[in-house]
Amino acid sequence: MSKQSQQQNFVHQVIGHNKQKHRLVPQKAQGTGHAPVNIALSKYWGKRDAILNLPTNGSVSISLPGLGTETQIKPLIDSNERRDKVSLNGEILDENNPFAQRVSAFLNHFRKDKNSFFDVITVNSVPTAAGLASSASGYAALVLALNDLFEWQLADKELSLLARLGSGSASRSLFSGFSVWHQGQQEDGLDSYAEAIDTQWPEFCVGLLEIDVKQKPVSSTQGMQNTVETCALYQAWPEQANKDMQVIQNAIQTKNFTTLGKTAEHNALTMHATMIATWPPIVYWQPESVEAMHKVWQLREQGVEVYFTMDAGPNLKLLFLETEKPAVKQAFADIKILEPFKQ
Amino acid sequence: MSKQSQQQNFVHQVIGHNKQKHRLVPQKAQGTGHAPVNIALSKYWGKRDAILNLPTNGSVSISLPGLGTETQIKPLIDSNERRDKVSLNGEILDENNPFAQRVSAFLNHFRKDKNSFFDVITVNSVPTAAGLASSASGYAALVLALNDLFEWQLADKELSLLARLGSGSASRSLFSGFSVWHQGQQEDGLDSYAEAIDTQWPEFCVGLLEIDVKQKPVSSTQGMQNTVETCALYQAWPEQANKDMQVIQNAIQTKNFTTLGKTAEHNALTMHATMIATWPPIVYWQPESVEAMHKVWQLREQGVEVYFTMDAGPNLKLLFLETEKPAVKQAFADIKILEPFKQ
Repeated sequence: MSKQSQQQNFVHQVIGHNKQKHRLVPQKAQGTGHAPVNIALSKYWGKRDAILNLPTNGSVSISLPGLGTETQIKPLIDSNERRDKVSLNGEILDENNPFAQRVSAFLNHFRKDKNSFFDVITVNSVPTAAGLASSASGYAALVLALNDLFEWQLADKELSLLARLGSGSASRSLFSGFSVWHQGQQEDGLDSYAEAIDTQWPEFCVGLLEIDVKQKPVSSTQGMQNTVETCALYQAWPEQANKDMQVIQNAIQTKNFTTLGKTAEHNALTMHATMIATWPPIVYWQPESVEAMHKVWQLREQGVEVYFTMDAGPNLKLLFLETEKPAVKQAFADIKILEPFKQ
Repeated sequence: MSKQSQQQNFVHQVIGHNKQKHRLVPQKAQGTGHAPVNIALSKYWGKRDAILNLPTNGSVSISLPGLGTETQIKPLIDSNERRDKVSLNGEILDENNPFAQRVSAFLNHFRKDKNSFFDVITVNSVPTAAGLASSASGYAALVLALNDLFEWQLADKELSLLARLGSGSASRSLFSGFSVWHQGQQEDGLDSYAEAIDTQWPEFCVGLLEIDVKQKPVSSTQGMQNTVETCALYQAWPEQANKDMQVIQNAIQTKNFTTLGKTAEHNALTMHATMIATWPPIVYWQPESVEAMHKVWQLREQGVEVYFTMDAGPNLKLLFLETEKPAVKQAFADIKILEPFKQ
């Protein structure tokens, strides 16, 4: 089965297209969706199935309020060009733009027929592809917009499955607060989806240190593939990542911040270690990233309980409780502090 | 058997003390030794036996001419203090100095009786403990000085075995040019020693980028132990390191610089990856280290064939052939270039 038909098949199973043929007929003038970005506390790095975006391990994340993607989608009518019209942050993208191509490839699964195209308007409140997971909120918002346009009324599980097909970490961007993405075992990928973790933790803070918001040099997809293929150390990652996920889930449930922080930082550094040991090396770190890490460790030595995590990019995300906010602000003048449970 | 007696036993086997009791009687007024520092091209990281300094994998190195340690040793007479007198770079060290303590612990294996102490004068032409392997040249020079003082007339193999007991990488600091340290299999450690590789490569250059010459925050010994104990990724290291060692040995013999450079850089990054994935994290990198790495990768993209390696410290050592010297000098104004085969 081709990649296209394997994915199509997956989509049809999720939206129930085979039973109800009208599932791909728009039910209203336009659909809208909004989704937050999420920061993984234990990371997704490596696919066991690149076509269905099935991960080698589960992961846990925290969504960030106020940062995310807002998407509107409607059928494209009266257009001479036989392609989707995709705009990002107010700019209409040309057909060679990689973002537009990726969105259109995803939308291929949702066309009524060969002549149906979409008009997609996407606005990110985070820089695109800078390690702040704009693709996660992007695909989650797009799936929510499609769900609205077609009036599927899908449950969270199905929405997460569809978002995952667009971008693995998008599976976790449908929820506020903490989420867990289950690795799943099935070949059909229908058991690999994310769920909200039902814990409110008002004191929990995330601090964003934006080191560099340029487009990253190696995409996550390419980076993962190179790591799996050339990094000898990677073989130990999936098992360790699953252990970390379990520890972090327990730490969330028991509100054990120390365990959460240590495990999240160790997990992120372990993921970056697998990248660093890849050939050619994938070093997302900038000099300022390393400077900030050393500063975090200095703060800890001084008794300030702050940890960091990093996604596939140079930026650090600090994790701390409300009591440490003054110390963190003093140490990092430009930090942007978010309180995920105080919206 | 205690650590002390296990090491003593090893020393006696190497110097043949049990057969000839006068092996620990000084034969002249003083002994002298000089040894170069060495840069590992495939690294030593992890001990299978911490008492005898037996490595989990073999390694290959290049010695640097003009940088190393000069040591003089003589019996200490007319001293009231019942301890060795150790001076480093012109300064007499007090008894709490860790370097002096480590040297004295090593010298314990070479005392005729409980009342014999030594006067040791060590001069390093490299900063101490800054990732420039001063302990390697230090123990190699000390062993050569002892060999001179006691007139053992040991062969290179035995000298290497003794130096290894002082500091693993010292086993490789007895030779000029390339050396290989065999991992060895025996429990007694008598097959884990280094040998010179008989290849002259006049075009081979090493460039030293001194990022930071401060004492490093975590010693290699402590770093290795923490890595082995807490880094899940480490399990893949010994096998990969032995493969790299083999590839580099072949590359030296066939003078395949590209293979040597790539493998050495990948090996060093893999070692640092195991440190980074250790808890607490061991990040010897400074912001300037990362800046220099990115600069090396930029140079390669521009067609300049230069690679780097790094030991347990923040400094980069660049590897390139003579033809690239102008380009490397232009990119790195402060680089110190050494030509190991042009003395």
